[in-house]
Amino acid sequence: MVGNVIVGQSGGPTSVINSSLAGVFKTAKDRGAKKIYGMRHGIKGLLDRQYVDLSDKINSDIDIDLLKRTPSSYLGSCRFKLPEISADRETYDKIFDILNELEIKYFFYIGGNDSMDTIKKLSDYSILIGSDIKFMGVPKTIDNDLAVTDHTPGYGSAAKFIAATMKEIIRDGLVYDYPTITIVEIMGRNAGWLTAAAALAKGEDCEGVDLIYLPEKVFDIDHFMQRVKEKSSTGKSMVIAVSEGVKVADGRYVFELSDHVEVVDAFGHKQLAGTARFLANKVAAEIGVKARAIEFATLQRCAAHMTSRTDITEAFNVGGAAVKAAFEDESGKVVVLKRISDDPYMCITETHDVHKIANIEKKVPLEWITDDDFITEDLIHYIRPLIQAELSPIMVDGLPRHLNIDLTKSL
Amino acid sequence: MVGNVIVGQSGGPTSVINSSLAGVFKTAKDRGAKKIYGMRHGIKGLLDRQYVDLSDKINSDIDIDLLKRTPSSYLGSCRFKLPEISADRETYDKIFDILNELEIKYFFYIGGNDSMDTIKKLSDYSILIGSDIKFMGVPKTIDNDLAVTDHTPGYGSAAKFIAATMKEIIRDGLVYDYPTITIVEIMGRNAGWLTAAAALAKGEDCEGVDLIYLPEKVFDIDHFMQRVKEKSSTGKSMVIAVSEGVKVADGRYVFELSDHVEVVDAFGHKQLAGTARFLANKVAAEIGVKARAIEFATLQRCAAHMTSRTDITEAFNVGGAAVKAAFEDESGKVVVLKRISDDPYMCITETHDVHKIANIEKKVPLEWITDDDFITEDLIHYIRPLIQAELSPIMVDGLPRHLNIDLTKSL
Repeated sequence: MVGNVIVGQSGGPTSVINSSLAGVFKTAKDRGAKKIYGMRHGIKGLLDRQYVDLSDKINSDIDIDLLKRTPSSYLGSCRFKLPEISADRETYDKIFDILNELEIKYFFYIGGNDSMDTIKKLSDYSILIGSDIKFMGVPKTIDNDLAVTDHTPGYGSAAKFIAATMKEIIRDGLVYDYPTITIVEIMGRNAGWLTAAAALAKGEDCEGVDLIYLPEKVFDIDHFMQRVKEKSSTGKSMVIAVSEGVKVADGRYVFELSDHVEVVDAFGHKQLAGTARFLANKVAAEIGVKARAIEFATLQRCAAHMTSRTDITEAFNVGGAAVKAAFEDESGKVVVLKRISDDPYMCITETHDVHKIANIEKKVPLEWITDDDFITEDLIHYIRPLIQAELSPIMVDGLPRHLNIDLTKSL
Repeated sequence: MVGNVIVGQSGGPTSVINSSLAGVFKTAKDRGAKKIYGMRHGIKGLLDRQYVDLSDKINSDIDIDLLKRTPSSYLGSCRFKLPEISADRETYDKIFDILNELEIKYFFYIGGNDSMDTIKKLSDYSILIGSDIKFMGVPKTIDNDLAVTDHTPGYGSAAKFIAATMKEIIRDGLVYDYPTITIVEIMGRNAGWLTAAAALAKGEDCEGVDLIYLPEKVFDIDHFMQRVKEKSSTGKSMVIAVSEGVKVADGRYVFELSDHVEVVDAFGHKQLAGTARFLANKVAAEIGVKARAIEFATLQRCAAHMTSRTDITEAFNVGGAAVKAAFEDESGKVVVLKRISDDPYMCITETHDVHKIANIEKKVPLEWITDDDFITEDLIHYIRPLIQAELSPIMVDGLPRHLNIDLTKSL
């Protein structure tokens, strides 16, 4: 027996964040952890003493396999930043009191760069008070904007969903014999990794998207309208991928441009359109072609029925590697993925000082964005291995089955 | 040899409309058809002499299997209604001239109730002029609003995508520890069959959607707001399915209520929100909870990566049955599906006079809609067999492969 473990999930969900939870759980159990607790709603829930004994909930190998295929954060999530240690030691003392009550020796937190801040602060505090609890970060985010790691678990599956759905939308958009403009809005306020995945649609059986706009580059509306005008004047239908986070030169988001609505609807509410809707309205009004807007919305982060096996496996592995490192007395670290070969694709895990990862946002390098509103082959080569292979959903009565446990009751 | 065949696709695409095309092609070929032509963009393309020799394009068994999994109308589509015969015989003479030039003996049209009007008029005209060309309709529509047939090919796969995605959205919506309202807009201007499929999300591993609104019933906004207020006041998150076609008592669509915008955005364009967006804005503004809108948009009609095997097979079968019937000298008919047993589910094809099907819209019976804003078990039992079983996509390099043929060049 190696002591008790607690694990939490934080930030926006992904399709594979529960595969990391499965990796933490299974590895900790296999390596002799006494108790494995799950925080409800991350560190915020823990502060309210909301936790469950995961061994009560995950009882069999099929539970593990269902958990790997269950979208969204199984334990619930939070968006909560711990205060600075110097400003509020009370919160930290409360957390450590709860951890000590539960005889926790190992603390795992699955999340993005904000969540890694939690690991940083807790491990800093543990040094301050001489606690021997080990704190390890497990990376996840569909946004792929975490520093140091080659990519983040969650990104590959979101990219695969985007590319696969884009192929279908392109087919759908070509069906009539007059030009239509389809503008697809993809998540990513500051980083364009997800939007770039739209480029993968192109292949022997698909002509691909026509234009791609990432938030790393200033969005020039006049130039955009010019490009659409040129292409559509040939009678060709177009599909355009645009990041929700594209901004014009003065720093405003494109979707904020529709914010000039003075009055509004029958009920006096302001009607804010999204980026794609705004652009589609503009194209329809000024160029006079049929334009439609599609938002992938939360589908891109929860489409567990279309995941990348590569991603699911890596998500599991970073969870397992975090446990292994903590059990070998590492703390204040994050597990990162290191690509050691491109062709064939091979990727291993390493651990890295959390201080060099927390709160840092990794964007798409500008040299991977082309001047003709597309992305480079280098960027496509970077993404493609991450969407490879499938883990079929376990279908029951016609629908994907997820792991069901009544988590509403904590211990 | 039994003479030449031509086949076209019309109206909105579905995920399985090409499975019907495969059924027509393969059955006609197996039964000795000399040439099998495909109209580009339906009857409208044919009038412009746009057609292809399908035998040049579909060369192997794997092509047939790829075609079954290829979304959208492979041959292209049109929204085109033939004139009344009495008003414009010229158009009809032109069509029959083209058919005679190509030595067509059998004409198949895959489409919904508008497309069946084309079969009705062409078969009527063939009787008028004593042509021996046989005209058969092959049903398809995600809307499931065709008369006589138990259901339409295309509906089951759209229903499966909606139910599967709804399960994922529900998980995603439960992740935080404060109430959120997710309003999902589903296609169906007049018939609520697709929206009803959201009810299938409920099961052992999913608490299901909370409220369902179909267009068959008047939408009472005050009542809706009251329901949302009641439920959200308990701290519970909610997921609500609403048809794009819901209307208030005075006959206006809900999405038209946001049409009162006088002036608009920075560029002077009217910003029209969808039904879900309109309701989400209203909920957020008046109840003060976090509300988000999701539109499935075209994804529900083109998500070929998540189809129902039952649907794919039935879509293939109605194509094949149309060929069989035509080759046995039937004309002016539509193939319909007849459910001969509910448990176990069994369904056969029959042919039916097109005059009793064309232009008729089948809605959800009011007795299948409950007073507490949901649907009955009877309706769920009706839908559930249609989403059963899967036809896995053929995955190549991480993405579903579709049949690719350069159709831009006609003969």
